[in-house]
Amino acid sequence: MNIKDNINNAGSAWMNVDGPESDIVVSSRVRVARNLKGYPYPHLLEQEKAADIIRAAGLALQDKALAEETGGFEVARMAELSPVERQILVEKHLISPDLLVGYEKKAVALRDDEVLSVMINEEDHLRIQCLLPGLQLKKAWELVDRVDDGMENTMDFAFSEKFGYLTTCPTNAGTGMRASVMLHLPGLVLLDQLKGILISISKLGFTARGLYGEGTEALGNLFQISNQVTMGRPEEEIINSLNSVAVQLMLQEREARKVLLRERGEQLKDRVGRSYGILGHAHIISAEESMRRISDLKLGLDLGLIKDINPVQLMKLMVMTRPAFLLQQQQGHFAPLQRDVQRAELIRKSLKGEVI
Amino acid sequence: MNIKDNINNAGSAWMNVDGPESDIVVSSRVRVARNLKGYPYPHLLEQEKAADIIRAAGLALQDKALAEETGGFEVARMAELSPVERQILVEKHLISPDLLVGYEKKAVALRDDEVLSVMINEEDHLRIQCLLPGLQLKKAWELVDRVDDGMENTMDFAFSEKFGYLTTCPTNAGTGMRASVMLHLPGLVLLDQLKGILISISKLGFTARGLYGEGTEALGNLFQISNQVTMGRPEEEIINSLNSVAVQLMLQEREARKVLLRERGEQLKDRVGRSYGILGHAHIISAEESMRRISDLKLGLDLGLIKDINPVQLMKLMVMTRPAFLLQQQQGHFAPLQRDVQRAELIRKSLKGEVI
Repeated sequence: MNIKDNINNAGSAWMNVDGPESDIVVSSRVRVARNLKGYPYPHLLEQEKAADIIRAAGLALQDKALAEETGGFEVARMAELSPVERQILVEKHLISPDLLVGYEKKAVALRDDEVLSVMINEEDHLRIQCLLPGLQLKKAWELVDRVDDGMENTMDFAFSEKFGYLTTCPTNAGTGMRASVMLHLPGLVLLDQLKGILISISKLGFTARGLYGEGTEALGNLFQISNQVTMGRPEEEIINSLNSVAVQLMLQEREARKVLLRERGEQLKDRVGRSYGILGHAHIISAEESMRRISDLKLGLDLGLIKDINPVQLMKLMVMTRPAFLLQQQQGHFAPLQRDVQRAELIRKSLKGEVI
Repeated sequence: MNIKDNINNAGSAWMNVDGPESDIVVSSRVRVARNLKGYPYPHLLEQEKAADIIRAAGLALQDKALAEETGGFEVARMAELSPVERQILVEKHLISPDLLVGYEKKAVALRDDEVLSVMINEEDHLRIQCLLPGLQLKKAWELVDRVDDGMENTMDFAFSEKFGYLTTCPTNAGTGMRASVMLHLPGLVLLDQLKGILISISKLGFTARGLYGEGTEALGNLFQISNQVTMGRPEEEIINSLNSVAVQLMLQEREARKVLLRERGEQLKDRVGRSYGILGHAHIISAEESMRRISDLKLGLDLGLIKDINPVQLMKLMVMTRPAFLLQQQQGHFAPLQRDVQRAELIRKSLKGEVI
């Protein structure tokens, strides 16, 4: 399979709803930052040396032992992809928006099922990432660890006995690891309890971000919680501690949903019902409204208020209705109104089961 | 059939959509005001004399010749009906809100199909009314004329050679006739053209009112157009001239709909689709929002944008979702929220064809 095929398909393994606690924990992600000895950090890297690193990473991933243990990867230089294709990889959460800046020197390696990916020459030379559905931080860490070990067999990583793995930004040094969970928290938002909770979490060394990372808005009541500290604690400890935070938030969200059902049941049904009706019948809809209403549907589905929707389809819709994915599907340039018309049509068909 | 049965059924002959031009002209109404010689006008009438008039009207309507020609009537004193039942007669457009004030002296006579009715001791002793679906002013006038002639056989109407029929309010004297059409004009409202048109119409001696008569709001884009002048022109001329106004408005509305479809087709489909989706899935909905969205659906139906709705059902819904009808159906007292919940449920079921 080619990466372009991945781009043309909205689905991804992380949207699978068989994951543990996937009613609230949409996905778990772990990534580690690694840099090669003897090369400047990416922002100082010349074109030729950047190409060397891309080549070396590709070879490391083709190593027989690694491929056997973790599956084969497909490498694509960002320059091979169109701007829209690059944007879709962001919308699918497979790469970060940073990989689009100065993309001539950058590349991505992707395992076919999109669970494992390696960003090359993003902020660091390598960012090895695992993205799994539901609450599976430990498994995600194990998979990343295996790719990391495999690549280290043929590559020489910058490491200091004192600081651990060295990274472009010192806040990533040490383990070089960031773990995060993407949580769907409409109940806490509706009860206006989330802000207070996020402040407490930040005091524990975790940070909450919007759907597409730092500085982005929390579209569709989706929040990413990740560790702030990467140094001075072993990876397993960080993973366990984030896992506890996720479980805590999950319990609070479940409690919030119970309260909402008990005290504002009709309002909740009305909200979910209206969003369902509008998504099924609107002819013009913005990306923002789509996300908001799809979030309502996911909540309704999780609470059993609506039943005839495929939950995986709903997660796919979150990606399919993003601007770049829509553009790619339509293969053309559209005025904003036309894009909103296309989006509404896609959603209508999707909810009728006509699109997969 | 008893009048209470009429009250319990939301349907009425005027909601029939087989009427001419019924895509825009919902209904046609003609009523004449008559007073009996030798009795004070209703607002000065004592209880006993009011009862005399109710009795006399009942007898006149039971006259064999009249009953054969126009069908039999059922008479009910307002005091026999509960407040909710009285309000439903208003919501069905069978009596005016004025008949509810000082109702102890008042009564209504109703033909089974609700096409003909006589309000007794409203502003005048008798108000004979005919209400037909679509644009049928001439037929409505003929039916009223027959009841009028039939009642005059046994009753002595106050009439002056100089002023014609005498009425409580001098603006009704002469023919004593008011004719009106109820028009659904969403296209002209959406294009913001209606206000200007209504000003021109008022210069021709016609007046526009909301759904429930003078001083009421134009709910659901429904407007009543009626003649202001009752004196100095024969009935047929008034009828013809209102008919021309209705035809003119109808053509303008059709043109407006064409313009909307051509220039704002997607917005129109979006509006109709969202209203359809919301009515089919909301769990809380106010009377005002219902009317607005049912109006959108009627427009969508008339333009062929939606197809799977029974148009008579839609007209019934306009009555069924009014506050009193809803109360009557639920046989109980509800807080406003509960009423909005009941209304939403009724609409959902109705659109699924579960309620008739």
